Amino acid sequence: MSTRIAILGAGPSGLAQLRAFDAARRKGIELPEIVCYEKQEDWGGQWNYTWRTGLDANGEPVHSSMYRYLWSNGPKECLEFADYSFEEHFGRPIPSYPPRAVLLDYIKARVEQSDVRQYIRFNHAVRWVEYNEDTEKFTVSVMNYTEDKMETDQFDYVVVATGHFSIPNVPEFEGLEHFTGRVLHAHDFKDACEFEGKNVLMIGASYSAEDIGSQCYKYGAKSVTFCYRTAPMGFDWPDGCEEKPLMTRAEGRTIHFADGSSKEIDAIVMCTGYLHHHPYLHDDLRLVSSNRLYPPNLYKGVLWVDNPKLIFLGMQDQYYTFNMFDAQAWYARDVILGEIQVPDHATRRADADAWLAKEEALADHDAEIDFQAAYIRDLLAYSDYPDFDVEGQGELFKLWLQHKQEDIMGFRNRCYASTNTGTMAPELPDTWLAIKDDSLETFMAI
Amino acid sequence: MSTRIAILGAGPSGLAQLRAFDAARRKGIELPEIVCYEKQEDWGGQWNYTWRTGLDANGEPVHSSMYRYLWSNGPKECLEFADYSFEEHFGRPIPSYPPRAVLLDYIKARVEQSDVRQYIRFNHAVRWVEYNEDTEKFTVSVMNYTEDKMETDQFDYVVVATGHFSIPNVPEFEGLEHFTGRVLHAHDFKDACEFEGKNVLMIGASYSAEDIGSQCYKYGAKSVTFCYRTAPMGFDWPDGCEEKPLMTRAEGRTIHFADGSSKEIDAIVMCTGYLHHHPYLHDDLRLVSSNRLYPPNLYKGVLWVDNPKLIFLGMQDQYYTFNMFDAQAWYARDVILGEIQVPDHATRRADADAWLAKEEALADHDAEIDFQAAYIRDLLAYSDYPDFDVEGQGELFKLWLQHKQEDIMGFRNRCYASTNTGTMAPELPDTWLAIKDDSLETFMAI
Ligand SMILES: Cc1cc2nc3c(=O)[nH]c(=O)nc-3n(C[C@H](O)[C@H](O)[C@H](O)COP(=O)(O)OP(=O)(O)OC[C@H]3O[C@@H](n4cnc5c(N)ncnc54)[C@H](O)[C@@H]3O)c2cc1C
Ligand SMILES: Cc1cc2nc3c(=O)[nH]c(=O)nc-3n(C[C@H](O)[C@H](O)[C@H](O)COP(=O)(O)OP(=O)(O)OC[C@H]3O[C@@H](n4cnc5c(N)ncnc54)[C@H](O)[C@@H]3O)c2cc1C
Ligand SMILES: NC(=O)c1ccc[n+]([C@@H]2O[C@H](COP(=O)([O-])OP(=O)(O)OC[C@H]3O[C@@H](n4cnc5c(N)ncnc54)[C@H](OP(=O)(O)O)[C@@H]3O)[C@@H](O)[C@H]2O)c1
Ligand SMILES: NC(=O)c1ccc[n+]([C@@H]2O[C@H](COP(=O)([O-])OP(=O)(O)OC[C@H]3O[C@@H](n4cnc5c(N)ncnc54)[C@H](OP(=O)(O)O)[C@@H]3O)[C@@H](O)[C@H]2O)c1
Repeated sequence: MSTRIAILGAGPSGLAQLRAFDAARRKGIELPEIVCYEKQEDWGGQWNYTWRTGLDANGEPVHSSMYRYLWSNGPKECLEFADYSFEEHFGRPIPSYPPRAVLLDYIKARVEQSDVRQYIRFNHAVRWVEYNEDTEKFTVSVMNYTEDKMETDQFDYVVVATGHFSIPNVPEFEGLEHFTGRVLHAHDFKDACEFEGKNVLMIGASYSAEDIGSQCYKYGAKSVTFCYRTAPMGFDWPDGCEEKPLMTRAEGRTIHFADGSSKEIDAIVMCTGYLHHHPYLHDDLRLVSSNRLYPPNLYKGVLWVDNPKLIFLGMQDQYYTFNMFDAQAWYARDVILGEIQVPDHATRRADADAWLAKEEALADHDAEIDFQAAYIRDLLAYSDYPDFDVEGQGELFKLWLQHKQEDIMGFRNRCYASTNTGTMAPELPDTWLAIKDDSLETFMAI
Repeated sequence: MSTRIAILGAGPSGLAQLRAFDAARRKGIELPEIVCYEKQEDWGGQWNYTWRTGLDANGEPVHSSMYRYLWSNGPKECLEFADYSFEEHFGRPIPSYPPRAVLLDYIKARVEQSDVRQYIRFNHAVRWVEYNEDTEKFTVSVMNYTEDKMETDQFDYVVVATGHFSIPNVPEFEGLEHFTGRVLHAHDFKDACEFEGKNVLMIGASYSAEDIGSQCYKYGAKSVTFCYRTAPMGFDWPDGCEEKPLMTRAEGRTIHFADGSSKEIDAIVMCTGYLHHHPYLHDDLRLVSSNRLYPPNLYKGVLWVDNPKLIFLGMQDQYYTFNMFDAQAWYARDVILGEIQVPDHATRRADADAWLAKEEALADHDAEIDFQAAYIRDLLAYSDYPDFDVEGQGELFKLWLQHKQEDIMGFRNRCYASTNTGTMAPELPDTWLAIKDDSLETFMAI
């Protein structure tokens, strides 16, 4: 019987895995049997916007955390596929910060070039995965919502590509039980227009807080307050926006903060991050991690140290995204195809632990970027994924951090050159703050 | 080895099962080994209000669909425990329609009288249940969130008491993808104050639509529109409220209805009911049902026809609630204790199908009430649950329907006599519409 592979999820990581196999097929390599289970009706993962919140039409957690008017928060030049440039896709250069729909179009187009869609069973939610030591196979149980029945199948390898920015981390604060305004997590934030004229509070000091707060400002919130646990973001916010230390409690509509100050608030948006949540994995297979650059127990950041037939893609916190997923997927493919020999347990453990130790010693954002670049560089050595200027993109990330520091509402007006094609991105016709329509059509008419 | 029972859920149904066993223990009967898994931190099921929406602190679906200022929607005289009256609990008569906190207090007090809490593992979410034909045992896998580890155990019986008003049924409507107002399901409706001054639309024509719409009216919404798929509720709504046929599509903030009319809407509340959702049950054990008075494949509305060691409590649509769960739990207890002989498969199938056929022929609400009364009456014959005036309560339900028809905003001002104690309920000191504080303290100070 041929080797059988289950890929869980058809977001950018799962699609990278399919693309990797397809690239091998084009080189004449015979592929194993592949089944990709995807709980949504279409591919694209996080990039599929939905108006739904909480649970979806099948009663499964809504996957996407994206919202209307979301634009790339990093330069597109840092996430470009090494085997499919933006210029090739759009037929011309486009600005550095595209809106969600533009990136979704780009992600989908690459996989639409081949027939990998045939491998995907949409509307199938993975419910339970077990490994049998005797047969050395995984049993995967999935719910087929199209036919409302369960299916169980055996696989030699399982590639987990279900993402980790989907299940919200929602802390408790004193008094929320009686707060009469609205409380939601960033995951359920859908449209800044709902908050026009409102006093909104963001809890958290990372990407979601920064971006949702900026959007609320852009679309007419009355005031935007940010509050932090560890450290403020420290941007030069425009009038109407301010940062405060963490909220301590709610009392009616009044929110109290750690510095003793208080403010009337209509809505609280918890931008408090996400949980690594794998309810379908039994404890011996379950990745337990915070949002970090090197999750524990993953050899090469991909293979489960205790059982390298279990593979995780995209489980890292992310500067690099699409091209990092590619580097991982090409590596995983070659492990599965037997092109890469996986070392013994002690070596895997030592290697994973060494990366982990390095990660823990990182001093600042620049060092983090260098670390993730080094990780990708290491992976690239193993496969034939097209070499790309990982370090050059790292320098763009460092510039991006500076540009954000200089002007948090203006950094998306910047342009960068593609490290793949060398082409400089054109400018937006107006400032990001002024462009309120984020549709593909409007952007491409630019 | 002694018989082992897993009870899934510690809401009113699961607690009824624990109370039933405790009643047997008090009579000197030796109990089997009981483990009750509850994913929340406390007991009470739906009756535990939470400010959370979507997913809870562990990433599990938030269970409770209840919201602030929720009052009983039926007379408390129709849900009174036959073995613990309201008067015994509160030490005096109380009005017929109590708020949520008062009912929660009553539900909890009955189980606090004994030490059944010891059986419950809180913060444990059931993940997977399998039946092994050879060993005739169930394997139950649960996530222990307190210790962040999975536990797997074997049981002879599984009692499913996880409710069926928790996982929202959320249909799609054209244009929601671009609607810039707020869209939520009744499950995530938390506080009517969020909708003060707003034009709100309820989709659906059942209890949630009726009650959430009434609340929005009570707490100052600008207008309340209801729209129905099958038939309007037909109440005599106050000014500012109206019923329309189903919405057909959204266009910006404009909602179009099937009669060609349209209206500007700020928020849409989908009061479109709930799914029977048992993601932890494999297909051969999974109850598939709409919200109906007699779900298919349940002998006596409780035992899984194909495997009567699998028991479901409270899976019916509900006129009767707490005392029906009790009648079911006492019956299930005696099946487990071997006091009741379960007939063969053909008999179980025929009996279940006969009830189902009867249910399908029901003409109106009054007939439905009589049907559920007859069902409870049938169950009561098998166990020693205290006999109670099921039919008398049925007459109260019919009166309640009339009183709602007469005055939808005033029916909760009515009083009824307990069929158990004979005591007439006292009146509310003011109208339900005027009493804005729904706390236990305020209500008990009445
Ligand atoms: C709000 C937000 C904004 C972001 N913005 C950017 C950005 O601007 N630029 C950028 O590069 N990155 C951004 N990201 C990061 C984003 O996570 C990655 O770009 C990318 O989507 C990760 O791909 P993935 O395939 O690993 O995971 P996902 O995109 O999350 O895809 C996982 C897939 O698995 C499926 N799945 C989950 N559970 C199951 C199950 N049980 N059964 C079957 N299928 C399942 C999901 O439906 C989904 O399709 C953003 C993330 C968030 C949350
Ligand atoms: C909005 C609303 C208002 C209502 N108002 C009334 C009313 O006024 N009067 C009335 O009599 N009835 C009312 N009801 C009906 C209500 O469903 C019943 O009163 C009662 O709560 C049902 O009890 P139950 O134990 O069957 O289910 P639930 O109360 O739903 O309890 C189920 C329990 O199972 C737990 N659970 C679920 N899944 C898992 C899992 N995987 N693992 C572990 N534990 C799990 C849940 O956390 C919960 O504690 C209302 C229902 C709703 C939704
Ligand atoms: N394209 C876009 O514009 C866009 C927008 C949003 C998000 N994203 C992406 O989405 C991903 C997730 O970003 P994220 O910001 O949601 O998560 P994140 O980066 O993991 O940050 C989580 C934040 O929540 C805070 N937090 C956690 N628990 C808290 C608690 N109990 N109390 C107070 N604060 C708490 C953390 O504070 P501490 O610092 O104290 O730990 C941190 O600031 C990233 O990949 C990001 O790039 C992109
Ligand atoms: N204490 C309280 O005050 C209170 C408040 C709320 C709820 N509850 C309880 O909660 C439980 C659930 O009540 P519920 O009203 O949420 O659910 P429900 O009784 O099952 O009613 C569901 C409603 O949604 C409609 N619907 C379903 N799918 C639809 C679609 N695709 N388009 C349009 N309409 C659709 C149905 O319409 P059709 O008629 O066309 O099928 C029906 O009107 C009940 O036990 C109730 O007693 C109690």
